[in-house]
Amino acid sequence: MSEYSKILLDESEMPTAWYNVIPDLPAPPPPPLHPGTHEPIGPDDLAPLFPMALIGQEVTTDSHVDIPGEVIDVYRLWRPSPLFRARRLEKLLDTPARIYYKYEGVSPAGSHKPNTSVPQAFYNAAEGVKKLTTETGAGQWGSALSFACAQYGLECEVWQVRASYDQKPYRKTMMEVWGASVHPSPSDLTEAGRAILAQDPDSPGSLGIAISEAVEMAAGDPDTKYALGSVLNHVLLHQTIIGEEALLQLAKVDEVPDVLVGCTGGGSNFGGLSFPFLREKLAGRMNPTIRCVEPAACPSLTRGEYRYDFGDTLGMTPLVKMHTLGHGFVPDPIHAGGLRYHGMAPLVSHLYELGLVEAEAIHQNECFDAAITFARAEGIVPAPEPTHAIAAAVREAKRAREAGEERVILTALCGHGHLDLAAYEKYLAGELEDYDYPEEKVAAAMEEVPVIA
Amino acid sequence: MSEYSKILLDESEMPTAWYNVIPDLPAPPPPPLHPGTHEPIGPDDLAPLFPMALIGQEVTTDSHVDIPGEVIDVYRLWRPSPLFRARRLEKLLDTPARIYYKYEGVSPAGSHKPNTSVPQAFYNAAEGVKKLTTETGAGQWGSALSFACAQYGLECEVWQVRASYDQKPYRKTMMEVWGASVHPSPSDLTEAGRAILAQDPDSPGSLGIAISEAVEMAAGDPDTKYALGSVLNHVLLHQTIIGEEALLQLAKVDEVPDVLVGCTGGGSNFGGLSFPFLREKLAGRMNPTIRCVEPAACPSLTRGEYRYDFGDTLGMTPLVKMHTLGHGFVPDPIHAGGLRYHGMAPLVSHLYELGLVEAEAIHQNECFDAAITFARAEGIVPAPEPTHAIAAAVREAKRAREAGEERVILTALCGHGHLDLAAYEKYLAGELEDYDYPEEKVAAAMEEVPVIA
Repeated sequence: MSEYSKILLDESEMPTAWYNVIPDLPAPPPPPLHPGTHEPIGPDDLAPLFPMALIGQEVTTDSHVDIPGEVIDVYRLWRPSPLFRARRLEKLLDTPARIYYKYEGVSPAGSHKPNTSVPQAFYNAAEGVKKLTTETGAGQWGSALSFACAQYGLECEVWQVRASYDQKPYRKTMMEVWGASVHPSPSDLTEAGRAILAQDPDSPGSLGIAISEAVEMAAGDPDTKYALGSVLNHVLLHQTIIGEEALLQLAKVDEVPDVLVGCTGGGSNFGGLSFPFLREKLAGRMNPTIRCVEPAACPSLTRGEYRYDFGDTLGMTPLVKMHTLGHGFVPDPIHAGGLRYHGMAPLVSHLYELGLVEAEAIHQNECFDAAITFARAEGIVPAPEPTHAIAAAVREAKRAREAGEERVILTALCGHGHLDLAAYEKYLAGELEDYDYPEEKVAAAMEEVPVIA
Repeated sequence: MSEYSKILLDESEMPTAWYNVIPDLPAPPPPPLHPGTHEPIGPDDLAPLFPMALIGQEVTTDSHVDIPGEVIDVYRLWRPSPLFRARRLEKLLDTPARIYYKYEGVSPAGSHKPNTSVPQAFYNAAEGVKKLTTETGAGQWGSALSFACAQYGLECEVWQVRASYDQKPYRKTMMEVWGASVHPSPSDLTEAGRAILAQDPDSPGSLGIAISEAVEMAAGDPDTKYALGSVLNHVLLHQTIIGEEALLQLAKVDEVPDVLVGCTGGGSNFGGLSFPFLREKLAGRMNPTIRCVEPAACPSLTRGEYRYDFGDTLGMTPLVKMHTLGHGFVPDPIHAGGLRYHGMAPLVSHLYELGLVEAEAIHQNECFDAAITFARAEGIVPAPEPTHAIAAAVREAKRAREAGEERVILTALCGHGHLDLAAYEKYLAGELEDYDYPEEKVAAAMEEVPVIA
C-alpha cells in the first residue's frame, strides 16, 4: 500500500444517485402529523412551503433518487470531496488504528450543507419559485443556501439568530457576497418576530424562532418557498452523496470500516455519511459500529424522549416523532452552533430506536482539545461541530491502542473552522465552559410538548 | 471533451522537484550586496539567518532541486492542488475564452504560502534549529509558517504588524492553534521595535519594521533562524510546484495557455505559477503572454525604479536589485495586505527588465467587483490579493469576447478570503477607497534609497 494521505475520485466517478435508507429498514419511520388535527399530513399540507419534487422525495419509497444533471454540474465545483487518511494523527496518538476522514470543508460555503442547498435551490427554480427563505444560526446553512440560490438565479432571504448576527458579522458578509439579504431574528418583519420582541425587545433569538419567521414569510407569498438545512428526510437523502463517495474511496484502498462516528445536530451530516454504510451492513456486506456524537449540553439522543414534537419554537411546523428535549428548550451557548437544536432528525431517531445506531455525548473542552491535536497533525482547523466527531475518533483510536487492535475508523469532517476562530481563542485562553446536561430546563420544556394519543 | 470543472492529479503524479529558472535565462540576476560594504554577499553572511540548505538553494545553478520525501509527505495533506476550469464564469462573461485557475486555498493555511513554509521548516529542523522567527502582515505567511513548524516540532515566533494584529485577531488565533507565539510589531522585545516605539508609541507598524524585529531576534540566538515568505530565490523556487502541477493538469486536457496572469506582492505566487511556463516558452514549446498584476496603490513594477534597495525598513537586510518604491515607503491601507510591499522579488524584477514578463496595475474596487462576480459564479470567495489576478483575467476574457477569439487564460487563485470578509463588507457598503499612485510619498522614500556605484 502506498503512503497516500488522501483518496480522490475523478468527477466521472461521482455517484449519480442519492440513497434512500427507508425501504431497507425493518419498519418505516412514523409519519409527520398536522400541528392542528394531529392527523398524518399529506403533500397538500407541505405545498405552501416546498416544491413538489422535494415533497415527493420526502415520502419516496424508492431506494435511489437520480441526481439531476444541473445539480451535478454545480456539485462539480467541489465534489467529489477528498477522503483523507489521518496518518500524522495516527502517529501522534501512537495507535494501531487507521483513521479516515471525509472532508466536506472544500465546498464554497465550507461545510457539507451545499450538498442539499444546491438541489433544493434547483428544484425550486425548476418549479418557478422566485425566492427562498430560511433560518440560520452561526451561518453555515444560510451561506450554503445563499451560494446555491446564486447558482440558479433565485433570491434568498435569511433570518439569522440575533446573537450570531451580532457576534459573527463575517458569515453575514459571506451570505451577502453571494447576493442574499440577511435579517437578525427576531425581526419586526414577521408576526412571529414581533410577538417575541413584544415580550423581550432584547431577545437574542434562537433557531426555533428564526424557523418560525422564515416559514411565515414563505407561507404568505406564492412565489416564495422555504428551505430547511437538516432534519427532514429529503435533506438527509441529498447528504448521502458523502457516504456513497466514501464507500467508493475506501474500496479503492481495500478498507472496510469497523467504526463510523459522526456529529449530530439535526442529523444531516451523520445521516449523509452513515446511511450508505448502514445499507451495506443491513445487506451483510460489512459490519461497522455506527455511532452518533452529540454535545453534552444538548444531548437529544442520549437524554431526550422519543415522541412527537414541533420542529420550531412557536409550533408552526408539523409534529414529527423524534428524540427531543422540548421545542421550547434553548441550549446553553456552546460554540457548535449547528448542534444546538432541541430535536433530532426523525430518521436518525428511528434508527436509534431500532438499535441500528449508537450515541454518545461529549463536553466541548474535550472536543476542542482533540481539535487542536488534529489541527497540529493534519493541518485542517475543524469547525466546532465536527470537533465532536474528532473527539470520538480519538477516543476510539486510544481504545484500539489499549486493546492492541488494528481498527478502521471513519468519520466526517463536515466543515472548516475559519469563521469560528473566536471559539478557539476562548479555548486557548482556558475560558471555555463545559455545560452539563440542563436537567431542569429540559424538564420544563418537555412539559410543553403536546401529548399525542 | 467532457464537461469537467476541475482537473485533479493523483498524489503519485505530484512533481518531485522544484524548478530553478535562473540557468535558463539569457543573463543571471545581479547579486545581493552586503548592506555595509556593498560587496556581493557570500554564504557566511547569510548563515546567522538561514540554514545552509536554503542558502545553497538561494544561489544554486541547478535547473531542478529534488523535493525531500519528508516535505512531500506534508505536501500530501493538500497537494496536488486542483486546477479548475471556470465554466460558470465564462458563461456569465459570455466569452469565447477558456479560463483556468489553479487553486491554492486548499492548503491548511488557506494560501500558497505553505509550499515554502514547509520546506523551510524542514531544512531548519534537519540542521538542528530549534526556533524560527518571522514577520507577518494580514497573517497569511505567519499562519503558514506556524503550521509548518508544528509539522516538524519547531518553535515559531511571529511579529505581526500592529494594525493587523488589532484588526484581524482571528489570524493570530489560527497561528496559536498551530502552537506559535504572536507579538504585535513594533514590540518592546527588540531594539528595532523599541527604537520605533520611542519615536511613536502608537505606531501601527509595517512589514518592513516587523522584518527588522524578526531578523534581529534570529541573529542574536544560535538556535534560532529566520524565515521569509516571499522575495528570495529559494522561496520562489519552492513555489514552482504550482506551475509544474498546472502544466501537467493542462496537458491532461490538451490545453496550452495563451495568457498567464498572476498577482504580485513580493512575487512568490506569480513566480511559482509562471516560471515553469516561462521555461516552456524559452524552449519554444509554447508562447504565452505572462503578466504580473499589482495594486495601483503599490505599483513597484510599473512605477518603481530598478535599483539596489533594502528588503526591510531599518536597512538590516542585504541590498537586492529590484523594482522598488523605496524601503521607507508605507503603502496606503488597501485590503490586499500581501501586496503592500515596497519592492518586488529580484528574480521577477530581472525578468521584467529582460522583457520576459509584462505588468499592469489595477485599483481595488475593480478587483472586488471581479471577485464578487467570481464568487457568485464559481463559489469560492477569493482573498483580496488574488482578486487582482481575477480582475486581470476578467479583462482578458472581455477582450477575447470583443475580438471574438478563443483564448486560454490561466491564473492562480492563491488563497481564499474566509478571514478577509471585513474587506468584502466594506466593498458591499460602497466604502472601499481607490487609492491612486502616491507620487510624492514615493519620491520622498526614493531619496533614502542608497546610491550604489
